[in-house]
Amino acid sequence: MADDASGEDRLIQRYFAPFATQPGALGLSDDAAFIKPPPGCDLVLTSDAIVGGVHFFPDDAAPSVAGKALRVNLSDLAAKGAKPLGFLLSLALPKDVGDDWLGRFAEGLRGDAVLFGCPLFGGDTVRTSGPIAISIAMFGSVPEGSMVRRAGAKPGDRVFVSGSVGDAALGLALRKKTDLGAAWKLTDAQRRHLMSRYLLPQPRNALAEAVRTHASAAMDVSDGLVGDFAKLCRVSSVAADIAIEKVPLSDAAKAVLAAEPAMRETALTGGDDYEIVCTVPPVKAESFRVAAKAANVAVTEIGEVKTGEGVRFMGQDGKPLAFRRASFSHF
Amino acid sequence: MADDASGEDRLIQRYFAPFATQPGALGLSDDAAFIKPPPGCDLVLTSDAIVGGVHFFPDDAAPSVAGKALRVNLSDLAAKGAKPLGFLLSLALPKDVGDDWLGRFAEGLRGDAVLFGCPLFGGDTVRTSGPIAISIAMFGSVPEGSMVRRAGAKPGDRVFVSGSVGDAALGLALRKKTDLGAAWKLTDAQRRHLMSRYLLPQPRNALAEAVRTHASAAMDVSDGLVGDFAKLCRVSSVAADIAIEKVPLSDAAKAVLAAEPAMRETALTGGDDYEIVCTVPPVKAESFRVAAKAANVAVTEIGEVKTGEGVRFMGQDGKPLAFRRASFSHF
Repeated sequence: MADDASGEDRLIQRYFAPFATQPGALGLSDDAAFIKPPPGCDLVLTSDAIVGGVHFFPDDAAPSVAGKALRVNLSDLAAKGAKPLGFLLSLALPKDVGDDWLGRFAEGLRGDAVLFGCPLFGGDTVRTSGPIAISIAMFGSVPEGSMVRRAGAKPGDRVFVSGSVGDAALGLALRKKTDLGAAWKLTDAQRRHLMSRYLLPQPRNALAEAVRTHASAAMDVSDGLVGDFAKLCRVSSVAADIAIEKVPLSDAAKAVLAAEPAMRETALTGGDDYEIVCTVPPVKAESFRVAAKAANVAVTEIGEVKTGEGVRFMGQDGKPLAFRRASFSHF
Repeated sequence: MADDASGEDRLIQRYFAPFATQPGALGLSDDAAFIKPPPGCDLVLTSDAIVGGVHFFPDDAAPSVAGKALRVNLSDLAAKGAKPLGFLLSLALPKDVGDDWLGRFAEGLRGDAVLFGCPLFGGDTVRTSGPIAISIAMFGSVPEGSMVRRAGAKPGDRVFVSGSVGDAALGLALRKKTDLGAAWKLTDAQRRHLMSRYLLPQPRNALAEAVRTHASAAMDVSDGLVGDFAKLCRVSSVAADIAIEKVPLSDAAKAVLAAEPAMRETALTGGDDYEIVCTVPPVKAESFRVAAKAANVAVTEIGEVKTGEGVRFMGQDGKPLAFRRASFSHF
């Protein structure tokens, strides 16, 4: 007789199978899953990993860690105009991670999977001598040929960004050095707002359909607006002028910048915004605003695509700002 | 101006973009990739990770590490009867991994991607304070509804296994304690055979179509034949009798078992075989043999599915063997 479920199988069946509800997930009892893509659709594929001590703090709450792992991928789908279909989870766990942490992690993951309509299809759980690492591969769908790319921006297109920029980078600064809150004279609510924007991204999946039907190019802002939008312009072979005073800031971020103007660079070049930056042909700009309003996602026009190369972030004095570091990079 | 490519982008463009040749991969210059699944097909999804010090030795050659990461996923597709379409790569790298390692890793990955017809579509590269971790999400295709599952074995079905069993587990034992080779009186060729079977799996993708058109149930043997086949029988709600003397062994494994009969348990319950175990209805058994021969993959009939529950591994004395540990598990 040899019919003992292994420890790994027990772990999967206990924590993850309860929300792998799609028929093709086979209750996580198989080597693989299957999915029938919607007819006439392309599949959109993306993969992002987060690592303890790099992308989240070891003492972050387990449900927030799960939410961040899922949401950084959801944000990619949103920017591509894709509807989520599901995800695969690859989890590397150190020995000291117990059932308590795993249970709360799975609970957080389940909550977000339901919230964003993005069910679990399968995955893998392995041991590591390093920190917790969570890699998610996510797949979505778009009508054939309609995935919004980074390449595609045209001179004259209007540049839009969703939500507000810089909160997460300021929240991270605050997390690393909590007395900054006092120096910046933040209210408790402002402090909480910035910290929560770093802890748990708010991906703009509600805006995906409006992006798909209006944008000439789009990407999600994960490594800082300045550097990320420069990438979009580079692969689109265009330039752009951005008006810094139009970049949308939360009240909390405005309070920080009032107290310490030098933090503007952190706000514009720091990472983890998970907003969408996109370019929209002028004839579609008004319709895009209307569609975004209907989707209940704030969008702000911040500039215009030009011929040439390079992105200029223009101050109110009409002069372009220079940044020490355009965007966040681990390498 | 803010148009510097980040270090991560440079790394991706230098090492990985050259073999992300599918149009939907967009040269790895986008947030996501897209793929049009073949008409009338389901997509098969699988994800497996390997971690330094757990699934491979830190001093394993970089191309072998790349090959193992890809092949453990290819093996899952093979067992499900699926044709590879492509993969997403998630790479967590410690600071001390330099360009030299990465270049050789990418070279190995490219070679196998070409060999198995499984191109790179995208991924993510992150820093970690832990060991190198490579997570791959792979997608394949099968005609709609035809993915071979673990569930589906019926009493009377014949049990087949591909290739030979136990080599990798014996190779790992040898790797950990090299003087075993002398104790086992192995030739150099036998030693190399066992070590190479641990180092680099030989997934049976050539057998996928034969499995899909003949097998009632299948899985790949990654955690040991005894435990893995027990899982298949459990989800199929059947029992099985396996004749131990019929389990195919390489000459090298036979030499080990002749020198140290107790290693039989290691061979049957150790991991990393990456063979396919499947059940085939009796009327299809001969046709399966023919198809396997045409695919140039050895398959061996090792037993029969029965009613009831539990898998019995029968010795030549007609008595079932008891195992201390049915299969490998990290948890």
